[in-house]
Amino acid sequence: MYKVYGDIQSGNCYKIKLLMSYLEIEHEWLHVDILAGETQRDEFKKMNPNARIPVLVLGDGRTLTESNAILNFLADGSNLLPTDRFLRAQVLQWQFFEQYSHEPYIATARYINKYLGLPEERRAEYEGKQAGGHKALSVMEQRLGKADFLAGDALSIADISLYAYTHVAHEGGFDLGPYTAIGNWIERVEQHSNYFAMND
Amino acid sequence: MYKVYGDIQSGNCYKIKLLMSYLEIEHEWLHVDILAGETQRDEFKKMNPNARIPVLVLGDGRTLTESNAILNFLADGSNLLPTDRFLRAQVLQWQFFEQYSHEPYIATARYINKYLGLPEERRAEYEGKQAGGHKALSVMEQRLGKADFLAGDALSIADISLYAYTHVAHEGGFDLGPYTAIGNWIERVEQHSNYFAMND
Repeated sequence: MYKVYGDIQSGNCYKIKLLMSYLEIEHEWLHVDILAGETQRDEFKKMNPNARIPVLVLGDGRTLTESNAILNFLADGSNLLPTDRFLRAQVLQWQFFEQYSHEPYIATARYINKYLGLPEERRAEYEGKQAGGHKALSVMEQRLGKADFLAGDALSIADISLYAYTHVAHEGGFDLGPYTAIGNWIERVEQHSNYFAMND
Repeated sequence: MYKVYGDIQSGNCYKIKLLMSYLEIEHEWLHVDILAGETQRDEFKKMNPNARIPVLVLGDGRTLTESNAILNFLADGSNLLPTDRFLRAQVLQWQFFEQYSHEPYIATARYINKYLGLPEERRAEYEGKQAGGHKALSVMEQRLGKADFLAGDALSIADISLYAYTHVAHEGGFDLGPYTAIGNWIERVEQHSNYFAMND
């Protein structure tokens, strides 16, 4: 059985939980407390020298890190990862966009605000994240204004990746109100009968 | 025939050039001048609303962005992308590591130094990138101290992705001298008979 080391309040970890719920993949979830320094311990770094969650441990002990790599591994062969070569690359395109142009702004602003309580010494950094976050949201809005999902015409792990931090973007100070196509897409992602909420 | 919009001095674009050279993929290379604002023009943003290079244009006009998504698309079916599900996920693991934990430090420090000439107002940012860059290099060094390549036991697009900015890390102020395993790996990547140098 799979083991997942993570914190469900972290979007990068929640992605894995949501996919596992959609695909009904049995697993054991092991909570890791980042603020208590648990990812910095030697034992944890043996699993991931980069000292980050999530980490997936396979039944045979092999480990995999990086949330989107884990999603691709778990979704392979399911209807959440297309087999067409171009569509598959489009899924990756959105996932790399997520890690480079979305997460560093929206997730980091949320972390500073929600986890750290927006301390005065990080306010400038928090405010500096707003423009980049809105740029990422506008790129998504453009796509979702003309298509129901990010890659192709069906729900895929690209949507799961971007949904994770987008649906809680308000916790990082981002008002999603003006992004109506994103709002409708969020509802579509949540319509799945196996939907699992971050705050459940 | 493929078209690639890029700047060969950008590691994210050079990755594509190196792979296309290794796989002998015919293409037309269209130079884009970032500093002249060419990625900000409306015509460019029609190809990539995120206003970044590289962009791959297929023969039928479809476009693909994000360097590592492009590599996965082009390498599919070749010996540079394994078919085994776990190995393929490991390739992605290193590519997501590259975009999140390596590029934002090493490539950005190099950009500030090499492209912008290390202006005084960005010196603090430049210096702030050094610790993160060395952390990424040490994660690579750990892996390459016990294996010849990043994913599995053969050259893959994971190596091409990380080679791109690592082999010019000194231009961002990173001395690779202490990273002997990385140094040996750089030589292995360059041994390919179709090797194409960034400065050719």
